[in-house]
Amino acid sequence: MNQVIETILQHRSIRKFEDRPLSDEQIRTIVECAQAASTSSFIQAYSIIGVKNKETKRKLAELAGNQSYVEHNGHFFVFCADLHRHEIVGEMENVDLSSALESTEKFMVALIDTALAAQNAVIAAESMGLGVCYIGGLRNNLPEVCELLKVPKRVIPLFGIAVGYPAQNPDKKPRLPFHHVYHEETYQQDRSELENQLKQYNETISSYYKNRTNGERQDTWTRQMANMLSKQVRMYMKEFVESKGFNLK
Amino acid sequence: MNQVIETILQHRSIRKFEDRPLSDEQIRTIVECAQAASTSSFIQAYSIIGVKNKETKRKLAELAGNQSYVEHNGHFFVFCADLHRHEIVGEMENVDLSSALESTEKFMVALIDTALAAQNAVIAAESMGLGVCYIGGLRNNLPEVCELLKVPKRVIPLFGIAVGYPAQNPDKKPRLPFHHVYHEETYQQDRSELENQLKQYNETISSYYKNRTNGERQDTWTRQMANMLSKQVRMYMKEFVESKGFNLK
Repeated sequence: MNQVIETILQHRSIRKFEDRPLSDEQIRTIVECAQAASTSSFIQAYSIIGVKNKETKRKLAELAGNQSYVEHNGHFFVFCADLHRHEIVGEMENVDLSSALESTEKFMVALIDTALAAQNAVIAAESMGLGVCYIGGLRNNLPEVCELLKVPKRVIPLFGIAVGYPAQNPDKKPRLPFHHVYHEETYQQDRSELENQLKQYNETISSYYKNRTNGERQDTWTRQMANMLSKQVRMYMKEFVESKGFNLK
Repeated sequence: MNQVIETILQHRSIRKFEDRPLSDEQIRTIVECAQAASTSSFIQAYSIIGVKNKETKRKLAELAGNQSYVEHNGHFFVFCADLHRHEIVGEMENVDLSSALESTEKFMVALIDTALAAQNAVIAAESMGLGVCYIGGLRNNLPEVCELLKVPKRVIPLFGIAVGYPAQNPDKKPRLPFHHVYHEETYQQDRSELENQLKQYNETISSYYKNRTNGERQDTWTRQMANMLSKQVRMYMKEFVESKGFNLK
């Protein structure tokens, strides 16, 4: 196993950091690694906002649901889907690009582009001995996040990444069974097989939680997912992304 | 610079492969690396279909716009946004999850989850000396791709990844200027500054193409983007993703 694969397989989310900022060189390397990711038709449809300001971080933490590690970390990155520069391109080249920019296809492209860049940033940071945590909680309050970070139309902050020197060493969380996620030749639709795999996974997750909490937490994956997905959260999202000029046609 | 960062920064898309299949062990490692990526609230909203069958690859190549490297490679992965298993979860736990599953928020979550996993797969493959190329062209004909790969409702193939032993050694393509993509504290909206950065980048890209084609290709990034985005492509996407049960509310 090489160093790259070792880094990738060692990933755990870190939610407690030392009080020690990243250097500008570390930040630059992380962003350059993000930019090295593949991008659909070279479109480069994302921007990254780096936040050091303590007051901004404190407000972001509040907006994300009071997660302390949004405030306390070595650096906070906000990854944004961005077609604002392509609107400028249209004006520079005197072509109306609005149909493409407002399409669901380009909404998907911008989301995928942003996520590919982000994951490169994460792997790069982890390879330097840093820990990371993705912060989807920013999507709880996107209008406020946009106002705070002065984000224009055709830009959507998708998630944050808190980065820093780890002050905890959590366990790796077991993933869904390999053959539940990886299908050979065609999507395997045998219903009883899929259910059996989920039941098997429930046992894995159940013992994982029991071991970590001295038997206190009794939870399965399907129960956890059913709880999470029975809540209607962020239902403003469709209207919000449309108001930003995305996903309209 | 460590081996991880070196691998990430060395990335180029490979579009010509040796006629040599990946081993099952290589495939397994790549998929396990994909699964190690972060996932929003542990939702794991993706599946991966691995294609070895020559006839399936030939058809996928045709559907993706006749790209030969979709047919000729060491292995072909199709990365799918997947909330099908969460629908099964709802039935197993006897809860109606359709509101969440049909929300734009969970559409975004599934896209981001899939892309994070894919980029881990890519970095892992490249660290083994393999080359990769993302194939967004699958989105040209998603109904046919879904039929060919027997993909059920609540699953959308987002892109393919062709992987194999490289039979070419292309140059790295220069990215947008660092300070155009990376903003400090807030999104930098100064319009003339943004335009200047794009003009500067046009010069970089222009010399890159000239150098590669002995002066023949005269292209800038803004022109290339304006051309690409003035075409209305894949405008069926909104209706298609809705028909798959995504992005409805």
